[in-house]
Amino acid sequence: GMSRCPDLDSLMYALSGQSNEKTGWGRKGETWNFLEAFSSLGGEDWFKLGDKDLSVHVMRTVLLREGLNLEQVTKRLVERFGIRNLVAPISNDRVQTKIVAKDETYDFQKYFVHLRSEPEITSVQYSGSDKASISEGAMNALGHEGLSAVIIAPSNPYLSIDPMLSIAGVRRRLINLETPVVAVSPIVSGKSVKGPTGKIMAEMGVPVSSLSVAKHYKDIISALVIDETDEKEAGAIEKLGIDVVISKTLMKTLDDKKNLADNILEYITGI
Amino acid sequence: GMSRCPDLDSLMYALSGQSNEKTGWGRKGETWNFLEAFSSLGGEDWFKLGDKDLSVHVMRTVLLREGLNLEQVTKRLVERFGIRNLVAPISNDRVQTKIVAKDETYDFQKYFVHLRSEPEITSVQYSGSDKASISEGAMNALGHEGLSAVIIAPSNPYLSIDPMLSIAGVRRRLINLETPVVAVSPIVSGKSVKGPTGKIMAEMGVPVSSLSVAKHYKDIISALVIDETDEKEAGAIEKLGIDVVISKTLMKTLDDKKNLADNILEYITGI
Repeated sequence: GMSRCPDLDSLMYALSGQSNEKTGWGRKGETWNFLEAFSSLGGEDWFKLGDKDLSVHVMRTVLLREGLNLEQVTKRLVERFGIRNLVAPISNDRVQTKIVAKDETYDFQKYFVHLRSEPEITSVQYSGSDKASISEGAMNALGHEGLSAVIIAPSNPYLSIDPMLSIAGVRRRLINLETPVVAVSPIVSGKSVKGPTGKIMAEMGVPVSSLSVAKHYKDIISALVIDETDEKEAGAIEKLGIDVVISKTLMKTLDDKKNLADNILEYITGI
Repeated sequence: GMSRCPDLDSLMYALSGQSNEKTGWGRKGETWNFLEAFSSLGGEDWFKLGDKDLSVHVMRTVLLREGLNLEQVTKRLVERFGIRNLVAPISNDRVQTKIVAKDETYDFQKYFVHLRSEPEITSVQYSGSDKASISEGAMNALGHEGLSAVIIAPSNPYLSIDPMLSIAGVRRRLINLETPVVAVSPIVSGKSVKGPTGKIMAEMGVPVSSLSVAKHYKDIISALVIDETDEKEAGAIEKLGIDVVISKTLMKTLDDKKNLADNILEYITGI
């Protein structure tokens, strides 16, 4: 019965310096004493719920039950983490990513964590998105007079970005923006660096390339950042009417991250 | 939204050797990482919920939501703790102890843990007991042909024992038993050793003595175990038609506990 929002949590942990660098997910200095005891009682333990991480889910659930919406809850949590940036969910409504495989439809975490993205995807559904509307925070941010660009991180287009684009008004707002919308391609040298993006594209019959990512985002982005090893795709992407920014996109160190961010900012301020 | 049953848990922890001897409650080797993180998010932390203890409440809640009743859930948990004894709740229905103080009615844990039993009690209510019925496990135990006695532990009569006696059929079954029902008085030398029993008796205008405990349990017990320091009350208690067992009842060591148990068993087998 707990409400979980892994992407909001990852943002909070990263912005507050609380990310767990060892695991690549969850919180710094995390322990798993609850989960270990729960597992010894026969409880499911495939979702690696740390003691500190758990406290965020419980607090979110408590506040939602008290009647706050997800935006208000997120604001409260973000403040508690000492973060000054705006962090807003795209919607206050519940949208769930469902993985349609050959024989079965899976909840996202079941597919992604428990089954390690092994089932072959035929399609992805965003359950509830037809009834969801954009949050006030996201709407204000996209309509803010100081907005200079929107950057779409190199996340999985099907599993992480499309759920947001599936919500009424989000896609339209991005299309109508006069400021640049820049996406970073999650594909490097024809492979996804992290997670199942490449595998999913192949299963859906799409060539695993930044050109495919460009086509996927065609109606909303004005520029795509591609890895320096994929420079040969630049021409084909530009023919779609999309600017190409070439950068090292593989981020292994903090310097790699800063360098990518600098290259994107340079593009944005240069146009 | 979690279901908690502190008395069942205390029994499970004690019978499996998992009791925390340092705190006097909760589990051995307990950690509070969840609660610490929850508190730093502004969460209420007066109820000292350990990481391992939490796993039991979550598992109980999960199983109850799956449709098992409290008896079935308890059986499952008891097995997981490697306990061979029968542990059964008195009822599968929800009964909540409510503390009626001068100006306000409190939930039990709020009164007992948060407010450290400070409000002055005018009465105690057992909300839901009028609709609750005795569990199959408790009924079978009380009706078992091998039953040689019922022992009521030196717990708080108002807060811990009466909630059970308030359930239809429990009191009647005890009265009709042919085997002895032996209670251990929680009062030693005119004071309650642990918890607010003495304070509550005083607030309710009852003299703080084992004689008062005997009167309170008069219709259900055949014997009362009183402390050796209260020997002078024996005569008055016997006049109520209740046998008196004199023992050291203050339990500080395991030997004290064994000695008290031995004295009770000696009485039971001797009659």
